[in-house]
Amino acid sequence: MIDKGPSRRGFFGVAGGLAGGIAAASVARPAEAHDVAQGVVPFYGPHQAGIATPMQSSLYFGSFDLATDSRQDVIIMLQNWTVAAARMSAGLAAVPGEQDDDRPPLDSGEAVGLNPSNLTITFGFGPDMFSFAGKDRYGIAAKRPAALVDLPGFNGDQLVEGQTGGAICVQACADDAQVAFHAVRQLARMAYGTATLKWVQSGFSTGTKTKGTARNLMGFKDGTMNPTGTPLQQAVWADDAGWMQGGSYMVARRIRIALEHWDRMRVAFQEQTFGRAKASGAPLGGKHEFDAPDFNATDKDGNYVIAENAHVRLAAPVNNDGTQILRRSYSYNDGASFVAERWPPWHQGVEYDSGLFFQSYQKDPRTGFVKLFDKMSKIDALNQFTTHVGSAIFACPPGVEKGGYIGQGLFEAA
Amino acid sequence: MIDKGPSRRGFFGVAGGLAGGIAAASVARPAEAHDVAQGVVPFYGPHQAGIATPMQSSLYFGSFDLATDSRQDVIIMLQNWTVAAARMSAGLAAVPGEQDDDRPPLDSGEAVGLNPSNLTITFGFGPDMFSFAGKDRYGIAAKRPAALVDLPGFNGDQLVEGQTGGAICVQACADDAQVAFHAVRQLARMAYGTATLKWVQSGFSTGTKTKGTARNLMGFKDGTMNPTGTPLQQAVWADDAGWMQGGSYMVARRIRIALEHWDRMRVAFQEQTFGRAKASGAPLGGKHEFDAPDFNATDKDGNYVIAENAHVRLAAPVNNDGTQILRRSYSYNDGASFVAERWPPWHQGVEYDSGLFFQSYQKDPRTGFVKLFDKMSKIDALNQFTTHVGSAIFACPPGVEKGGYIGQGLFEAA
Repeated sequence: MIDKGPSRRGFFGVAGGLAGGIAAASVARPAEAHDVAQGVVPFYGPHQAGIATPMQSSLYFGSFDLATDSRQDVIIMLQNWTVAAARMSAGLAAVPGEQDDDRPPLDSGEAVGLNPSNLTITFGFGPDMFSFAGKDRYGIAAKRPAALVDLPGFNGDQLVEGQTGGAICVQACADDAQVAFHAVRQLARMAYGTATLKWVQSGFSTGTKTKGTARNLMGFKDGTMNPTGTPLQQAVWADDAGWMQGGSYMVARRIRIALEHWDRMRVAFQEQTFGRAKASGAPLGGKHEFDAPDFNATDKDGNYVIAENAHVRLAAPVNNDGTQILRRSYSYNDGASFVAERWPPWHQGVEYDSGLFFQSYQKDPRTGFVKLFDKMSKIDALNQFTTHVGSAIFACPPGVEKGGYIGQGLFEAA
Repeated sequence: MIDKGPSRRGFFGVAGGLAGGIAAASVARPAEAHDVAQGVVPFYGPHQAGIATPMQSSLYFGSFDLATDSRQDVIIMLQNWTVAAARMSAGLAAVPGEQDDDRPPLDSGEAVGLNPSNLTITFGFGPDMFSFAGKDRYGIAAKRPAALVDLPGFNGDQLVEGQTGGAICVQACADDAQVAFHAVRQLARMAYGTATLKWVQSGFSTGTKTKGTARNLMGFKDGTMNPTGTPLQQAVWADDAGWMQGGSYMVARRIRIALEHWDRMRVAFQEQTFGRAKASGAPLGGKHEFDAPDFNATDKDGNYVIAENAHVRLAAPVNNDGTQILRRSYSYNDGASFVAERWPPWHQGVEYDSGLFFQSYQKDPRTGFVKLFDKMSKIDALNQFTTHVGSAIFACPPGVEKGGYIGQGLFEAA
């Protein structure tokens, strides 16, 4: 036999060099915890990490179909996923144990030596999990929450099947793209035969790198009105009785943005489209980013300073019966492809397949995303530049205490 | 008029908050400079930045077609690109001047507030620039270097036109994905009418985050044999007489890797494929990563410890007349797509469109990449898992001194 060197022993035991090991993952997670010093966001807690957690710089998102009719297979997968997610969040390899070199790798290994990088892994259950092709495969159809609606078709939707829907999702976020991908990849490997990837999406954000609100690829500050503190807690956590209490509902939309077209617009037009100044992020008519927009202000001709179809007017809680959602969106950059634009100047050519992987969390999508976007999809001035090409909704169960598994309440509670 | 707030004035003047402004960009760049404290890699210098520069965490690469028959248009574009690249490398907006809000943005703005992030912008000229459809559009065909060969078809090539070739390339690398994309996007905007994007590629690397050599998505340390110091300088910089002196030749290959298939292989097989231990990176038969591989060692049955078709054997300079190239490759993750595998277990399904955007720099591709890969494409055991789907070659001219422009020697010297 070949001596493969002395560092073999520790290889699969400790992937991230974290001294505390798995013990760190059992620490209860306070709201919005983000332990930058350690690079560890605790996995266990009353809520899942990756929702109220401050955004990391990289996202890798996987949506899975379920390939089994066995309730037990699904439960076993969720149990294995829970342990693996807790381990990886703590900087450990996905699976414990000594590697037998005559077997495939327990962990594919590309995160060895990397910091835990504030990895969070967030699970969600889509409509297809509760009923697929009219069949209640796992005996849980009656437990489908009313809030987990089938999203309606929205004005302008151009949804691609290969970026839409799914029975279970895994959202991995980390301050390292390789760590985020590694997490989804290990879970996908563990699920072979039970769940198969339907679509994936990678993304990036500068959220933690700038003072104040990060800019999106349109060059505007995005998320100024996101709730924080108590309003955030009130907006995102479901208060359904039963297994979803303390969970949250996620809506994901893959939004391709015609950046080349946007870049040809006058800055004044861009600002009127958003209803905000590009440089400061201030609402038009205001001076500072966090000034409250004055939606009644008019110019000398009697026109609204913030136009009726401006993005900020349509999204503002004050214009939506106080509705707040937590946006947790990542920009994406998936190469480029040929596009023939459908309005002047009818540009044709290779354009970025780039834009926003929009994600929102809310206690109830019916009074959250659906309520907001139904109106916005019809009249938001921003729609001239955005096309929704993917869509999904997931019920993200509450967090897990050590020894439990994700979704346990769905499968085991009365 | 609407008052858009006091921070407008500085918006397009200083994008990165760098006190020194453009002056920083005029500092001469020592070899392998990487000013982490400032986050600025000087743009000006005898060689282009982004070649010998230590790898940053993000890549955005654009390959352009030239849409003009005018030599003067190309020169003007290169002059504008040079100024913009120097400015962005220093953390400034691409274009100087005060924004007129009744015009499109001088800079699209998404990098405002972000650190310069060690941005490097590297330019290269492809075969199509020297002659296109048999036509010498710019009067430079006679100056095409012999080393800028048309790459031969290699065994196993499955090249896609939309990821192959191009007349000019821009490689932007930074420690922030948004900063890298921003750079290519501004240059593409400035080139409207002269150059149009043919294809793009984003990538990521953990190169600066681990001790020792970074791991690729196959979980192996990749680049152990990369030259450093003097051997690096000797390997990469062209010593052609004329305009390419001090430049370098880049070969880019988009290599999709069948990660799902790889993940099902025994670790021992993976190690025999590479010729290295997975955990330590040591050559088989050695103990430490940087041990010299013993290519003559045999096991008790008389078989080579490092197999004849092992990757490390085929790539080693000692087995290639001392040939060294600088590999500067990024992993990529462009979603997932349906794949029907062509060998057992004939898996069908959605697989990652993921792998390696291989880039190598060398003084002469004929004695560099072409020599190495001609052999490897035929017998490297790794080929079972890799498919080359994109390919390009570029002559990257030497660096620019302040006041000059990239490629000036090509257009102006005798």
